[in-house]
Amino acid sequence: MAIRTVVWGENVHEQKDSIVQSIYPDGMHAAIAAALNENKAISATTATLQEAEHGLTEKRLAETDVLVWWGHAAHGQVDDAIVERVQQRVWEGMGLIVLHSGHFSKIFKRLMGTPCSLKWREAGERERLWVINRNHPIAKGLGEHFELPMEEMYGEAFTVPEPLETVFISWFEGGEVFRSGMTFQRGAGRIFYFRPGHETYPTYHDGNVRQVLRNAVEWAYNPAPAWASVASAPNVPVDKALEKLVEKGPKLHAHGEEGFR
Amino acid sequence: MAIRTVVWGENVHEQKDSIVQSIYPDGMHAAIAAALNENKAISATTATLQEAEHGLTEKRLAETDVLVWWGHAAHGQVDDAIVERVQQRVWEGMGLIVLHSGHFSKIFKRLMGTPCSLKWREAGERERLWVINRNHPIAKGLGEHFELPMEEMYGEAFTVPEPLETVFISWFEGGEVFRSGMTFQRGAGRIFYFRPGHETYPTYHDGNVRQVLRNAVEWAYNPAPAWASVASAPNVPVDKALEKLVEKGPKLHAHGEEGFR
Amino acid sequence: MAIRTVVWGENVHEQKDSIVQSIYPDGMHAAIAAALNENKAISATTATLQEAEHGLTEKRLAETDVLVWWGHAAHGQVDDAIVERVQQRVWEGMGLIVLHSGHFSKIFKRLMGTPCSLKWREAGERERLWVINRNHPIAKGLGEHFELPMEEMYGEAFTVPEPLETVFISWFEGGEVFRSGMTFQRGAGRIFYFRPGHETYPTYHDGNVRQVLRNAVEWAYNPAPAWASVASAPNVPVDKALEKLVEKGPKLHAHGEEGFR
Amino acid sequence: MAIRTVVWGENVHEQKDSIVQSIYPDGMHAAIAAALNENKAISATTATLQEAEHGLTEKRLAETDVLVWWGHAAHGQVDDAIVERVQQRVWEGMGLIVLHSGHFSKIFKRLMGTPCSLKWREAGERERLWVINRNHPIAKGLGEHFELPMEEMYGEAFTVPEPLETVFISWFEGGEVFRSGMTFQRGAGRIFYFRPGHETYPTYHDGNVRQVLRNAVEWAYNPAPAWASVASAPNVPVDKALEKLVEKGPKLHAHGEEGFR
Repeated sequence: MAIRTVVWGENVHEQKDSIVQSIYPDGMHAAIAAALNENKAISATTATLQEAEHGLTEKRLAETDVLVWWGHAAHGQVDDAIVERVQQRVWEGMGLIVLHSGHFSKIFKRLMGTPCSLKWREAGERERLWVINRNHPIAKGLGEHFELPMEEMYGEAFTVPEPLETVFISWFEGGEVFRSGMTFQRGAGRIFYFRPGHETYPTYHDGNVRQVLRNAVEWAYNPAPAWASVASAPNVPVDKALEKLVEKGPKLHAHGEEGFR
Repeated sequence: MAIRTVVWGENVHEQKDSIVQSIYPDGMHAAIAAALNENKAISATTATLQEAEHGLTEKRLAETDVLVWWGHAAHGQVDDAIVERVQQRVWEGMGLIVLHSGHFSKIFKRLMGTPCSLKWREAGERERLWVINRNHPIAKGLGEHFELPMEEMYGEAFTVPEPLETVFISWFEGGEVFRSGMTFQRGAGRIFYFRPGHETYPTYHDGNVRQVLRNAVEWAYNPAPAWASVASAPNVPVDKALEKLVEKGPKLHAHGEEGFR
Repeated sequence: MAIRTVVWGENVHEQKDSIVQSIYPDGMHAAIAAALNENKAISATTATLQEAEHGLTEKRLAETDVLVWWGHAAHGQVDDAIVERVQQRVWEGMGLIVLHSGHFSKIFKRLMGTPCSLKWREAGERERLWVINRNHPIAKGLGEHFELPMEEMYGEAFTVPEPLETVFISWFEGGEVFRSGMTFQRGAGRIFYFRPGHETYPTYHDGNVRQVLRNAVEWAYNPAPAWASVASAPNVPVDKALEKLVEKGPKLHAHGEEGFR
Repeated sequence: MAIRTVVWGENVHEQKDSIVQSIYPDGMHAAIAAALNENKAISATTATLQEAEHGLTEKRLAETDVLVWWGHAAHGQVDDAIVERVQQRVWEGMGLIVLHSGHFSKIFKRLMGTPCSLKWREAGERERLWVINRNHPIAKGLGEHFELPMEEMYGEAFTVPEPLETVFISWFEGGEVFRSGMTFQRGAGRIFYFRPGHETYPTYHDGNVRQVLRNAVEWAYNPAPAWASVASAPNVPVDKALEKLVEKGPKLHAHGEEGFR
């Protein structure tokens, strides 16, 4: 079965900004989903902010293997309950790809536990992404580096935790650097942050970027069954202990009582 | 100047449970602070849930180098605004030591981005903590292992992100293991999680535990000035770029405009 | 095409010790290879110390995707030139699974850069392996823990670098703990250390252990082309620079000269 | 007591190349030691390749807290026995700062377990080091970035293992990036790799570079007693087990026998 992927798009600038419309007439989410669907092992659909429950119902998330997230102007309009639902699914093992300005999305900040801040400049400058971890699955099919002729600059310090792996580092024409591809894990869910994708440039039409998106979905996919109990804290009673155990000392909890949360 | 340390105690069971009262007549926070103050390089005071703003005013946190956190029954009563304030200070560089049942505190879950769940059993069983990273500052003065004759069991899987360092792993009489000492960093703040400390046992009177607490405060202390702007995302305009830059392409933001959050 | 896997066995105790012979009449390497070949996606053969070039010719290694290593009594008899050859292949992307007493093999110590020392006791005690990273590919199909009724004890501190991931931690009847499954990467090669496998016990006939071995081979396999130039340090001359560059300052190297090594 | 630091210099180009002589008339090692001695908490002396035992006798290393290493043209002339001696001391807890072309030194490659390869260009180009981990002790007193007007370029992929922490990333005028400051630990020893320092430029006279060198020595210093037994693998006999243990099953080793290595 193909990797069931949902591309979530904020879909705001596509409705208001003629430049963005001209580059992404069907929305950025549609362009990203089309890039993914070029790989037959992936089956990508889309969801947007404007849909009921932002298109991310419990049922749909339960049937999603990997979620791709692009947002920018409307982070604050994403319902906290939906964010919690997405977080739970990541913990259970759903993969998550966070793109560009999604660094400030509620879901990414929640999963990182850090500000996720950075420097920025919108000047259409040249970005060159260097592959740091050359045979990493996310770098499949790429050369030693690739370039985007015009992109928004993001500069360090990017306040995320130390990643599991640094896959890409960007060089910018204006003098900055940025860790443009990093992997993380939260619960059973694999997370990849990928920097490029400012809405006024045709970044998601770039062949290398599209290759990275497909690679990332394949990497983030975890075929293991969902870890539904990931957030539960079960009591293991004395008579179920794996080694013979004689209870000692005073107790706070009565037998069979739930723990505090 | 000594390391300005605040020991935050939930102070609930100390008021209601005669066993806890008999072990910690002045509260667990007082016992922990006393352990810290045995080191003259540390100056520890206490704060509790019941105080105004839980004893954690902006002013006080601004003057705190390291915060130690013990909570259990009343995690839900901690005000979200105070939790955000603590999180901001950690990002700025304040050290944080999270103890035992604090694994389910709002502040720890927020900083980890994971459920922080585990298994547990209250049976007064023997815990043996093995030192994994023997010359780590937090293991200063310890042997290869130390024992607590009666403790609550916490068992894996402990759903935190991969740590920077694993300092202790516990062996439990009933057959479980647990990563009992782990380091993390969020923003500029160093975080240490330390497992022992169930309220019905005299754990914070144990010499080795008290040594670990003092070591952890010294390790978590970062003398660098607070990184007040850690969560800001400054624009770097073209005319301030470090390399000569000619602006190209279409723009979303007018000059001088703030970025989206 | 199946994952081309070579199981390397020292094959010493199988020749001399009647207990080991009775458990592994065809050698430990044969038992391990048989476990792997139960998965049709893996094609496992064997190689031993006694063969010419220890069975690891350049040609054979070039056609090996994953190497599994078991050694104990004869680490010192492994030719340094072969060790270097294996290391180069790991850097190029060949996966490596190091088993049990292989912690002291030349190849593992070289790749870790540490002593790889530990505590040990041969007393047939019970080992319980806890799954720390539950949905990790190497834990596929396992429960929360599994047991081996008799194993050699290995105890911490295990002097390896901080791993990328901790997958298993063992509890031992005699009171020790051990990080029994850890992942590393060196160059493009993924490395998994897996603790169980003392030769006087039937460990490699255990169903859970065999499952882990198969999982580990699938995890370690990297389909990317071999990174043959991984150890080379190419000069990038000024006229090949990606950005226009005017050479400045004094020089040590004449144009076209090789760098020092 | 001050941190006993030895600056090891290869001292080859200083003897043969008039440019290097003019910049470092007393040798690069002397300039580096002078930078360190500006901090009274550090007591730095020098050692060179040409001295007996390269100036690194057992006695001297035993009295060294932190070793700083600069080499380039003569890596191959460093005696393997001395390299092993240095490695043992790092494992025991001695700090190690590896500078610039020291990436290809025997000691660094041995501790990393990887090729430590990279790209390079000697063109006197501008390097800008960005601080990634802003309040890290090694970044003390620095701004968000600092520049070196002329340096040799080192470009990724730099084939080292994933570091514990990335402290600096460099931007180069010619279009490359490089992780210029990374921390590692091997055994009890902390290791910092710092990129700048090509011998034909006055890099070690730069104020920011000198600040980093002092910071790095303070960071790498571990006051814990040397872990002399770090490479030993002690047997823990059944009668010394921490839990009561009844020996079971067949045995390979006679009682009291040493383990294999």
